[in-house]
Amino acid sequence: MEEKLKKLKRLFEPEAVAVIGASRDPSKLGYHVMKSMTTGGYRGSIVPVNPRGDEIFGLRPFTSLMAFPRTIDLAIVVVPAARVPDVFRECVGKKVGGIVLITAGFKEIEDPGGTRLHDEIKAIADEADIPVIGPNTFGIVNATNRLNATFTPEFSRVTPGGIACVSQSGGIAHLLSFLAMREGVGFSKIIGLGNRLNIDFPEILDYLLGDKTTSVLMLYVEGIDEPRKLIAQLRRIKNEKRVVVYKTGKSHKGDQASLSHTGSMAGNHEVYLGAFRQAGVLAVSSVEELLDTAKAMDRCPLPKGPRVAILSAQAGPGIAATDVCESLGLELAQFQPGTQKSINACLPPLALRTNPVDMGPAWYNADALSRLIRSVMEDPGVDGILLLTMFASANVGIVEGMREVLTSWNQRKPVVSSILAPEGIWDTQVRDLEEKGALVNYPTPERAARALANLWESRELGRR
Amino acid sequence: MEEKLKKLKRLFEPEAVAVIGASRDPSKLGYHVMKSMTTGGYRGSIVPVNPRGDEIFGLRPFTSLMAFPRTIDLAIVVVPAARVPDVFRECVGKKVGGIVLITAGFKEIEDPGGTRLHDEIKAIADEADIPVIGPNTFGIVNATNRLNATFTPEFSRVTPGGIACVSQSGGIAHLLSFLAMREGVGFSKIIGLGNRLNIDFPEILDYLLGDKTTSVLMLYVEGIDEPRKLIAQLRRIKNEKRVVVYKTGKSHKGDQASLSHTGSMAGNHEVYLGAFRQAGVLAVSSVEELLDTAKAMDRCPLPKGPRVAILSAQAGPGIAATDVCESLGLELAQFQPGTQKSINACLPPLALRTNPVDMGPAWYNADALSRLIRSVMEDPGVDGILLLTMFASANVGIVEGMREVLTSWNQRKPVVSSILAPEGIWDTQVRDLEEKGALVNYPTPERAARALANLWESRELGRR
Repeated sequence: MEEKLKKLKRLFEPEAVAVIGASRDPSKLGYHVMKSMTTGGYRGSIVPVNPRGDEIFGLRPFTSLMAFPRTIDLAIVVVPAARVPDVFRECVGKKVGGIVLITAGFKEIEDPGGTRLHDEIKAIADEADIPVIGPNTFGIVNATNRLNATFTPEFSRVTPGGIACVSQSGGIAHLLSFLAMREGVGFSKIIGLGNRLNIDFPEILDYLLGDKTTSVLMLYVEGIDEPRKLIAQLRRIKNEKRVVVYKTGKSHKGDQASLSHTGSMAGNHEVYLGAFRQAGVLAVSSVEELLDTAKAMDRCPLPKGPRVAILSAQAGPGIAATDVCESLGLELAQFQPGTQKSINACLPPLALRTNPVDMGPAWYNADALSRLIRSVMEDPGVDGILLLTMFASANVGIVEGMREVLTSWNQRKPVVSSILAPEGIWDTQVRDLEEKGALVNYPTPERAARALANLWESRELGRR
Repeated sequence: MEEKLKKLKRLFEPEAVAVIGASRDPSKLGYHVMKSMTTGGYRGSIVPVNPRGDEIFGLRPFTSLMAFPRTIDLAIVVVPAARVPDVFRECVGKKVGGIVLITAGFKEIEDPGGTRLHDEIKAIADEADIPVIGPNTFGIVNATNRLNATFTPEFSRVTPGGIACVSQSGGIAHLLSFLAMREGVGFSKIIGLGNRLNIDFPEILDYLLGDKTTSVLMLYVEGIDEPRKLIAQLRRIKNEKRVVVYKTGKSHKGDQASLSHTGSMAGNHEVYLGAFRQAGVLAVSSVEELLDTAKAMDRCPLPKGPRVAILSAQAGPGIAATDVCESLGLELAQFQPGTQKSINACLPPLALRTNPVDMGPAWYNADALSRLIRSVMEDPGVDGILLLTMFASANVGIVEGMREVLTSWNQRKPVVSSILAPEGIWDTQVRDLEEKGALVNYPTPERAARALANLWESRELGRR
């Protein structure tokens, strides 16, 4: 096992990477892989391999792997399926550390020839004990060393962060990454498992468990070959890293499609969900919820209890959030008398001074607002804070007004927010508060409330 | 009734607007209202009223309403609550067409003085038959004449479109508008009902029924004074305009807060939902779903049946969408033999050629892709199309490749999509396809699937 982990570490942190099937032709994936490798900021050696000698992205290719005089830690393979066995044998001869096999056309195609090829290359890799990510994968990204070993150069735009995105679907991994770019969520790794020749969820999770840059494992699952093994492993892992899973294939047609797609048993969705729950791992039901939850897990402490305080600059969003909180198992905290007294001192006698609190009347008074927020934060009966603020021109200073109390509090209890304005008004301030660890922000009150509820559920599950 | 509609039309389409309480001081709402009025593109007369004579946004104020020599169609009132009765009397004397009363501090405050003031100004307005939007409202926006009679100048950034946003909460209206800006959704009107002195949902809905620029009524509701009246009216309206409602206050605390906020009975949430259903109107459960559904209603025909074809450029998103479709009452269409033959001719023998279809292998061939899509569109067993495409560098040309088939089809059946790429790659092309009416696009497959399912449910409900 130790040996395997070392090999995976070498695969993700290579000093020299060969691109076998590198190409100058934009209609070939070998072109896009070279673009990813050369434009993503990777500082190691990039070794294009192509029998023809024309320069590719400014690099002169080697006609074969053997022609390169030094060690290759990672070989990215993008040649046609039929050529893969020979390339694998060359990799064995060259003693490459690991392979990312982008090529498709193995077990997933109807033609039994695909399965035969799959078995053939698996035998070669296993015999030489070479870890292979893929086949039929977009590849892997490591934010730490800016390695973009994929056919999508734009993955390099994702901000580095604590979330490892591990996906059984390339489409979903792309989707999650594009959403992460839009929402400013940071990833440590992006990993496409593809058809899992000899590296599956268990091996990747073991590797990520030891990866210091990863705090959250965000998993997209369709079907698993050895569910029990994964569940047992998740039960161990969830004490050291936070884990959130999105499993599709719950519908009849979705399940069938998933079986065809991944070549694995998908099977009864409810059984999977029960197993995740048993393992103490949170399962969610959309890519949006998956990313929202992973973001909260990466940036917030877990609440110690279900009692939430909702502080809203406007009543409506507070009411919408209250609905979500109560329906997802959070409770609206009953403020202690001292807290209520502080709130009453900061707000005029409007009705919404109990939880949810309508902070609207305190907009213009940063001091009052800060005192109010601070007293709620310090209330021992409050386990988490939902902070909701819609821009309305006259309140343009409110985010600056809350900055000090938020940053000095530094999320001793989780602060989950929905602070929203038209583009260009609060973007920088909110991003800055997120980066300082003062809060985690969402575009709607309901998504913020659900993220906080999921943090609580994750803690509850984790105690099993 | 006719008379009342004419008055509301005059209020929304004024030739001269007075701002009573106009101010040069950014800490006053009267400043922000003046900014909205003068910077939003409104072409009528703007008449600031303020006892002091200094210029406000380049306009010399009148010391009183009476000092203005011509007719005032709309008076926006932003003076302190105690002064409102006098201002109302002045409005009556001046025969203003309608009032937007932004000032708060009436029925919604605990002090019985608030209720007394409320009753007093209501008597004045009702006696003179002057329609009043508010009190305690942010105001109204009319995209057609660029009237921004609110304290939020940024509302003017919302694209004109077919959706009328009618909200009982200012915070939610701001939120919906900011989301609309982000997602490129167009509004015809933005209306904050506030505490509904004499203009409530029924009056506004009657007005919007006759508003040619409005095709969709998007309602945010907390509590209603006369639910039966509204329901009966919705039953009539839903034959002429599409309607979608988001009602909060389903939780105990949310319901209490809603009662305090709007001063109306909120009451049993399930009863409301049942009533909307009876009226044949779709109710949703988040601001995101509200806006997503309104957007689809504005830009798509309703499907004639529940049979959906899922065409996805990658398998995973297709599986995720399949799950959502089946759980929300859509069925995956069984393709006719001719359709299946066309699909098989366009795709290699991979497994996902039945519904959901994985179009991945046809990425590079715009002709094959178009033929495939066209054959599915024309299949009489297909009622709606979900088109899912994640960018992956090598498929950068795929949106251009689908353009012709999408635009020439022109949504004879609804085409709902999730086409997603990093910023700056497909934005313009997708926006263009939306503007041409070729599709309606969402950031995730699940949201696209839910929007299509809601279109179908809306049709089903509408047939009652």
